[in-house]
Order: sequence, then C-alpha cells, then structure tokens
Amino acid sequence: MATTLKDVATLAGVSVKTVSNVVNGHSFVKPENRRRVEQALAATGYRPNLGARNLRRGRTGFVALVVPELGIPYFGELAGQVLTAAREHDWNVLIEQTQGTREGERATLAALGPHLVDGALVSPEALTAADFGDPAVPVVLLGEHSVDARLDRVGINNVLAAREAVAHLVSLGRTRIAAIGAHPARGTAAQRLAGYREALARAGLPVREELVARVANYHRRDGAEAMAALLALPQPPDAVFCFNDLLATGALRAAAERGARVPEDVAVVGFDNTEEGAFSLPSLTTVAPDKAAIAREAVELLRRRVAGEADEPREVRAPFALRVRESTGGSAR
Amino acid sequence: MATTLKDVATLAGVSVKTVSNVVNGHSFVKPENRRRVEQALAATGYRPNLGARNLRRGRTGFVALVVPELGIPYFGELAGQVLTAAREHDWNVLIEQTQGTREGERATLAALGPHLVDGALVSPEALTAADFGDPAVPVVLLGEHSVDARLDRVGINNVLAAREAVAHLVSLGRTRIAAIGAHPARGTAAQRLAGYREALARAGLPVREELVARVANYHRRDGAEAMAALLALPQPPDAVFCFNDLLATGALRAAAERGARVPEDVAVVGFDNTEEGAFSLPSLTTVAPDKAAIAREAVELLRRRVAGEADEPREVRAPFALRVRESTGGSAR
Repeated sequence: MATTLKDVATLAGVSVKTVSNVVNGHSFVKPENRRRVEQALAATGYRPNLGARNLRRGRTGFVALVVPELGIPYFGELAGQVLTAAREHDWNVLIEQTQGTREGERATLAALGPHLVDGALVSPEALTAADFGDPAVPVVLLGEHSVDARLDRVGINNVLAAREAVAHLVSLGRTRIAAIGAHPARGTAAQRLAGYREALARAGLPVREELVARVANYHRRDGAEAMAALLALPQPPDAVFCFNDLLATGALRAAAERGARVPEDVAVVGFDNTEEGAFSLPSLTTVAPDKAAIAREAVELLRRRVAGEADEPREVRAPFALRVRESTGGSAR
Repeated sequence: MATTLKDVATLAGVSVKTVSNVVNGHSFVKPENRRRVEQALAATGYRPNLGARNLRRGRTGFVALVVPELGIPYFGELAGQVLTAAREHDWNVLIEQTQGTREGERATLAALGPHLVDGALVSPEALTAADFGDPAVPVVLLGEHSVDARLDRVGINNVLAAREAVAHLVSLGRTRIAAIGAHPARGTAAQRLAGYREALARAGLPVREELVARVANYHRRDGAEAMAALLALPQPPDAVFCFNDLLATGALRAAAERGARVPEDVAVVGFDNTEEGAFSLPSLTTVAPDKAAIAREAVELLRRRVAGEADEPREVRAPFALRVRESTGGSAR
C-alpha cells in the first residue's frame, strides 16, 4: 500500500521532480501542475517519510500549540485550523493545555525544548514578558496581548474590535451598556475592556462600574451568573457586550430564565464567532476573527523563524468582522 | 528556574526516591506522600526531562490522537480529557484530524510509524478491519465500532444508549419518533440506528422509513436541514432522536424557525452531552458518555500495550447516562 513519489507522478502526469517540488513546499511550481499533483496526492493517500526528511533537515517535525483549553470551542476551532495549516509544512502538532493560568503557561513553556519541537504557537492568557525570557525554541504568539516580549505575533486588534461591537449597540439607541468578562490577570480581557470604554466615551456615555462584570473564568456558567446579577440591578442594562461567545451563550440563557427578551429588553453581543452562536436562539451577534488567517499567518511566521529567514519580530494583524444576528435585531445567520 | 527532584522533595518533606517513584508512576507510594509530592510538583512547576527519559526507555514520548474534527465540540472536549490522562504517563499528544473519511483515516494511520509515536488512540468513523491490517504501532480504538479489527477498544454501548434515549421518548407517550443521523459509512451511526429500531420494536411502534433522516455530515446545519424536512411531512414527528448534540442543536433551531414548540409539539434528544446543550434554549436532553473515563481507560489500555503487559485485545465499556432536560420536559440543567 506504500505509495511512492513515482506513483503520484504517474497519476498526475508530471515528472517526479515536480511532485517532489510540491511535496517540499517549493513555490515555483506551475499552478496547473500543483493542482494535479495535489489531487494525485489526495487520491493516493501519499505522505512523505517524515522521519527521514526531518533527520536530513535537523528538525523534529513537531510544533507545539499551547492553548488554555481545547474544550473551549474557540480554541477547538482554532486548533483545527492550525493542524490544517501546519500539515502544509509537514509539521505534526503537539497540543498542550495550560488552563489559562500563569503557572500552567510557565510549566508548559519550560518543557518545550528543541529535543521536542521545532517551535511553538502560544496563546497566552497570563504570562508576562519575563516568563518568556529567551525561549528555548522559536515562539509565535497567538492573539493580541499585553505581553511585551520581543516575539512574532498574530492576532486581531482587540481594542478596535471591542469598540466596534459596542458602537453597534450604541447605534441601536442603547444607553446602559454592560460588559461581561473583566478579569484582572488576562491581557485579552484588558484590551476588550479598553475598547468598551473607548466606545462609550466616543458616544458621550458614562462608564458605570456596576455595569462592568468581572468573571472568574470564560465559561457559559460565568456568563449566566454575571447576566443574572446584572438583570437584578435596580436599573438593569439594556445591552451587554460579552468578551467571548461562551459568556454570551450563558447570558442568553440567564436572560430567558428571568423573562428578559433578547434583543427587545436587552441586546447581546459576543466575541469569537463560534458556530454555536449562529444556531442559538436567538442567534448571536458576534465579533468574527478570521481564524483560518490567524492559523495560516502564525504557521508562516513560525516557518520563517525556524528557517532562519526572519529577523526583527513581526506583528501580523488578522482581519475581523462584526456579524450582526438576531441578538441585536439582525437576521437569522 | 529549572526545578530539580531535590527541590520538590525538600518542599514535600519526603525523600528524593519518593518523588522519583511518584514521577515515574509507581503505584506503591503511600497516599499521603503522593499527595504531598503532587502538591509540591504543582507548586514548583517541575516537569521531568522527557528527552532523556524517553531515550532511556526507547520510547518517543508521543502518542497520537486521531479524531474526525477538533472543531466538533465532542472531540474538542474528549481531546482535552485525553491530554490530561496522557500527561500522567508523561506522554505528549499529537493530534491528527481525518475529517471522518476513510481516505483521511487511512492516510493518517499509514503515517504513524514508531519513529513518530509510541502508539495511537483512534476514533474511526469509516475504517474497516482491512484498513488497520497489522498497525505499525499499538492502536486503541475510541468508541464502539463495527470495525472488526483485533485491537483494544474503549467506548460506551451505543446500541443500548440509543435504545434508552428512544425509550425515554416512548415513555412520554410519543408515537411518531424520528431519527436524525443515519449515514451509510459510519459505524457509530449504524449502532445508534439499531438502538432506535430496537426501542421502537419493544414499544410495539412501527419503524417509518420517512422518519429516518440521513445526513451528509454531523454538523448543526445538517440537523437543521433534516428537522426542516421532517416538519414539512404531511404527518410530522412528535419526537426526534438526534445522533449527536450538534444535529440536535440544529434541530432545535429549525423547530423554532417553523414555530414548532419543543417539547410540546416535538421533543428532542441529543447524544454526547456537550456543554452547549446544558445552556441551549430549551436545554437539551442527551446521552452523556463518561468522557473522562473513556480517555483514562484508553490511555491505560495503550500504556499496557506499549509496556508489553497486554495480551488478548480487551474491550472496555465506559459508563453513560441519560440527562433529561427541558427539550423533553425535564428541568433546566
């Protein structure tokens, strides 16, 4: 059953050299030939002999993806995209969970040596620049973070995205806009909170501290608890900006349990565009980061760094869009 | 910052040998000492030098987890549990996605040699016994499957679980019970369909083929489309058993869009107990496999196999339970 390069070349009607060029990621293959080779590779199930190739190149053939929790849909979806992008560079992906704590993140990074991986894609929540120090393998950061380390990174502009989400709520005429997701130790939370404050300031609305809900974690339960507390205020909010879709899903549930209509009584916006929000009742307005672009750009930054092609650290900004759905009066999906 | 065994021993107030015994997974450590060592390990962030240990043992230190898609919540949650269980045996986990196709599964298995991993945990959808042949590394199957290969496996009894789910709908007095999720090439689907048929037969209800909905995939969209078609029948169903929670979530959405009340007009049951279903509106009745037990047992079967302690292939049945929630008239969560 072992397929050779020659089998692939015969099926594709090209030379073995052309197949080799495609497999080795060279960029000068004619698009038509590349297409035929890729079809033949898929049809035959051919995969390169990674062991031999990596030995030749002095690589381990592994990269690490370090995330808080795979069970959080955003990270599950992002990890799926990273696996796809990494495979194009013959990288196998080792996934590590940190639970989003500084201890978990430090312990994971400390264990990632060059004997194990060629590099790491790290989605930090609580690390500081000092924790990174001089990493033992090339590191690319995922997400925009307050981490001040001199590392390549790729993420969306969280402040701007949060500002747009809240400006959307302002445009609906909402004036008591709450935020769910403040967290003292998470960089992403700080940025989304900054965007929330900026949008209120631009609209001439006061920031009411009783409408800023802290959470212990970013799960549905935390969102439900925060929403229940907000709706119990003497003057409850007429809109809520949640820092991720899980919090927003919990908030939708808590609103329904208390008889608050969404969006009539309280409009809800999430963040992440996980598929769940497109099917929830009501469907969820959310900030949609381009996860495929984040994964692709991160793997490319790492490839350049590992190959010695990179010099100064680069920051790549991935695109995002606000998806307006039923939870703020938009259409179904 | 590098922590040594001695640091851990000092903090725990035990001997270095005791720490070593805990770290190496020996079972004869006193519970009280184990607890103190584990606390000290956590506090110091100590991790063993995997490179050196693995070299000594002739292992790679990696296991592969092969799943259809990480973006599917069930597999994201299961993968999280596998990472946790594998870490206890010093295994790093390499995750591979197959998209649930036979081609994807074959290509992935063919690439998993002993140069790469010590073994593999495989959640197959479409593979036949012939595809496995004599695998190059030890393989443990996840999930109960029609795959007739002589391999260790761990999963719940799908036929029984499906039968209980449908029996629950029968107990509510429903007589036109539909199934969403039939698929010609997926073993799990065949078993859940068998359980559905058995439950109807036991209740003296006919199997109506127009109430058995095939799907191309197991995503929310497929569930929504199938439910829309079922509700458009001259005699629509009064209950629906969906073969996973994603299909059920899509079905809930389609029901709401067509003005069908859940559970009054149509009761809905899912399968997987993903956290999403505990917060959906209405919350979802579902079959809850013990994912932590599946992960733990699978890693243990693989450990025994890799260590040469295993002989005849074993099949471990993990527990499951039916969680009755609002979508069949139960309580909120």
